[in-house]
Amino acid sequence: MLDSPDACTRFLKSFSQLQNNKILVHGGGKIATQMAAQLSIETQMVDGRRITDKAMLDVVTMVYGGLVNKNLVAQLQSLQCNALGLTGADAGIIRSVKRPVKTIDYGYVGDVEEVRSVVLKTFIEAGLVPVIAPLTYSQEGMLLNTNADTMASATAVGLANDFPTSLIYCFEKKGVLSDPENDESVIPVLNPDSYAAYKADGVIYKGMIPKLDNAFAALKQGVSKVIICHADDLEKAVSGNAGTTLVL
Amino acid sequence: MLDSPDACTRFLKSFSQLQNNKILVHGGGKIATQMAAQLSIETQMVDGRRITDKAMLDVVTMVYGGLVNKNLVAQLQSLQCNALGLTGADAGIIRSVKRPVKTIDYGYVGDVEEVRSVVLKTFIEAGLVPVIAPLTYSQEGMLLNTNADTMASATAVGLANDFPTSLIYCFEKKGVLSDPENDESVIPVLNPDSYAAYKADGVIYKGMIPKLDNAFAALKQGVSKVIICHADDLEKAVSGNAGTTLVL
Repeated sequence: MLDSPDACTRFLKSFSQLQNNKILVHGGGKIATQMAAQLSIETQMVDGRRITDKAMLDVVTMVYGGLVNKNLVAQLQSLQCNALGLTGADAGIIRSVKRPVKTIDYGYVGDVEEVRSVVLKTFIEAGLVPVIAPLTYSQEGMLLNTNADTMASATAVGLANDFPTSLIYCFEKKGVLSDPENDESVIPVLNPDSYAAYKADGVIYKGMIPKLDNAFAALKQGVSKVIICHADDLEKAVSGNAGTTLVL
Repeated sequence: MLDSPDACTRFLKSFSQLQNNKILVHGGGKIATQMAAQLSIETQMVDGRRITDKAMLDVVTMVYGGLVNKNLVAQLQSLQCNALGLTGADAGIIRSVKRPVKTIDYGYVGDVEEVRSVVLKTFIEAGLVPVIAPLTYSQEGMLLNTNADTMASATAVGLANDFPTSLIYCFEKKGVLSDPENDESVIPVLNPDSYAAYKADGVIYKGMIPKLDNAFAALKQGVSKVIICHADDLEKAVSGNAGTTLVL
């Protein structure tokens, strides 16, 4: 969505019109990969996760924290949505630890340790709309590249104590598909059993698995509702009329 | 200062130890110029001001709003300083208009129109330390490159209604010098008359003039104190024992 200015503007319009308290967590991986290439920095991915050496950390800090985040914020401001761009480091909202090296050294990648939801609550109660870039920080003052889906679910879980919280993943498909070849084959409701069955059949594949694992984990930790939908269907999805709804 | 990790860490340590409510406004022009060069984008300056076409706007958005701002924030967090990185667009704190084209088209450059100091006050009262990158936004949702000195003085003026406000410019000299060849020739106090005389003599030259013009304008608009000092002398300058103090 972020690659297409039109799709992005459409999304931001519908996002800004949502009457609920809201937070936007965004990615930007494709733009980071393009920027890295322009700087002759090679992008290496393992299982869909970016290997982040120091040079790549600078790229994602620039792209996620700067280019993408600030353009989203400025556009939202023009739509009368009082956006506040944040990384995990800002106001200490999401702290992580550098992922320990097991078989793979992911480099400067953070695993979320703590979401300070009380600070997010303060912002929301002040009428602000947090817009969160997928970067966190360590106690030692290091920035760390962090998966956007994980940040979204960790944030939703953190807020679920204070607010009934819905977690909505917007992407380029209409939901979780029962037939990867057919964009209309949206599974309306998914529970842990049917998820396991679809995985076993190979219908739900690579990129969707961490997203759905995160999503079910969020439900188990108190998030009221998780929906996976097309970015164009945000409003319909919020009212329960589009996308895939996850239930326990 | 931002180019030297050691100098930067020294500064952030002394900044984090200041007991007063505080805001940090930073630059990053040299790093932006380096990044632009790496992306084969030519930097054009007129009277010390950067010509900002769309490609350069993306560079400064990445460097000021991302790379520099987020690294400062993460470092301050590790020093127990609860930093919150902001551009003018975030929470709508500093709105500008795109500079009208007269003889020179500066491109995507903003002239400050409004500082929403009430929002900064909310952040400060919540125990946060705003760290502001030199970018603003227009009503139309455009990001605009904005001079850091101007943003610092506009912010100080905006806050002067609510707080007794000091504006401290930290740079690589010990203050305003009476002999540009002698780094120790700091002018301890400067008023509009002596400033005019030094300018007439050519002692105060190019880069200092917009800085000092901003500074005197801030005093006239209610800022209690303006000091210009070396980044290493922050604590001494705050207690009146270093740098050049401006008075009316």
